[in-house]
Amino acid sequence: MDDDSRDRPSAPVGRSERARTAALSAALALATELPYPQVTMEAIAARAGVGKATLYRRWPHRGALLVDAVAHRNAAAAAGGGIPDTGDLVADLTAVLRSVVDELADPGWDALLRALCVEALVDTGIGAQVLEQVFAPQIALFADRFATARAAGQIDGSVGDVEAFELVVAPVFHRWQLRTGVLDHAYGDAVVRRACRALAP
Amino acid sequence: MDDDSRDRPSAPVGRSERARTAALSAALALATELPYPQVTMEAIAARAGVGKATLYRRWPHRGALLVDAVAHRNAAAAAGGGIPDTGDLVADLTAVLRSVVDELADPGWDALLRALCVEALVDTGIGAQVLEQVFAPQIALFADRFATARAAGQIDGSVGDVEAFELVVAPVFHRWQLRTGVLDHAYGDAVVRRACRALAP
Repeated sequence: MDDDSRDRPSAPVGRSERARTAALSAALALATELPYPQVTMEAIAARAGVGKATLYRRWPHRGALLVDAVAHRNAAAAAGGGIPDTGDLVADLTAVLRSVVDELADPGWDALLRALCVEALVDTGIGAQVLEQVFAPQIALFADRFATARAAGQIDGSVGDVEAFELVVAPVFHRWQLRTGVLDHAYGDAVVRRACRALAP
Repeated sequence: MDDDSRDRPSAPVGRSERARTAALSAALALATELPYPQVTMEAIAARAGVGKATLYRRWPHRGALLVDAVAHRNAAAAAGGGIPDTGDLVADLTAVLRSVVDELADPGWDALLRALCVEALVDTGIGAQVLEQVFAPQIALFADRFATARAAGQIDGSVGDVEAFELVVAPVFHRWQLRTGVLDHAYGDAVVRRACRALAP
């Protein structure tokens, strides 16, 4: 959408695409290593080995670059298969929530995702970008799994995909953000069990 | 805890308590009227009619003052009765969530609460203060209502109060913060219905 370069694989375009990937990787690496105030466009450019002007041509600020980097990494992870579909909805969602819990427990990712939350809260433009590039693809993955669960009569047909997604994910997000309690696999497992009871026909 | 003045009701203490209340009211008023960057300690002091030094003696920064202001206002609201107990858990929680939804729909409160979320995400000290002064009292109100529901056999005895609270509140908080969809009474009502199904024995 922001990049039609893949349709014209010429030499300069290949270079531009390599610069983009280098910038996304550098941004992600720095944001999981350093306190956020140190994750400047300058530092990202230096790590990526590109000029600062190259970054600003594509991204107006580091927030936009960071959202893009997280979305790019999520897309790569989702290309590996999305949410498992064994026919057992509780088991499949449990596996997904455990990996979410593990990610949130990683100090680097914790810091990066808190920084993104702040960016999204402060700037509604970045908020919309987070929704479109980070959450919408995640919700789409869940929606695919909910569709087969619905077809198998495991979910009440009147519950929408976003509502079902929020029922499963929001308690974990809430506990992570507000530190209301221990966030571990046992908590994620219990959330999934309760959500599936709530979603049952 | 941060104020033992109520044990010694002498004249200067009364003045100090009035200054505190004036500062809390001024902070709340300004934070629901102005963009957050303009809600400075200076502006709060001017509105409250006290010196800036008076504010700094009690609060290290505006974040701490704002959390205190929200907690103070919630305590005043809770003194009016807390969560209703008609015996009908769905109806009682629906009434509570509707007022939460209404509050989040108010542009002034929306801005203030987003600013507080940012403060809590950026500074773990303020995060802990938000948890202790804002969320813990709210969770305690829900816990009282969950206790009578548990005694009436309406809630599975193995579900903890914080878990039950998160099941009810987190989807609304998530939708508000990330703008994943329309946040209205219908959404809050559906969340309560599903949460109560999930919580049933």
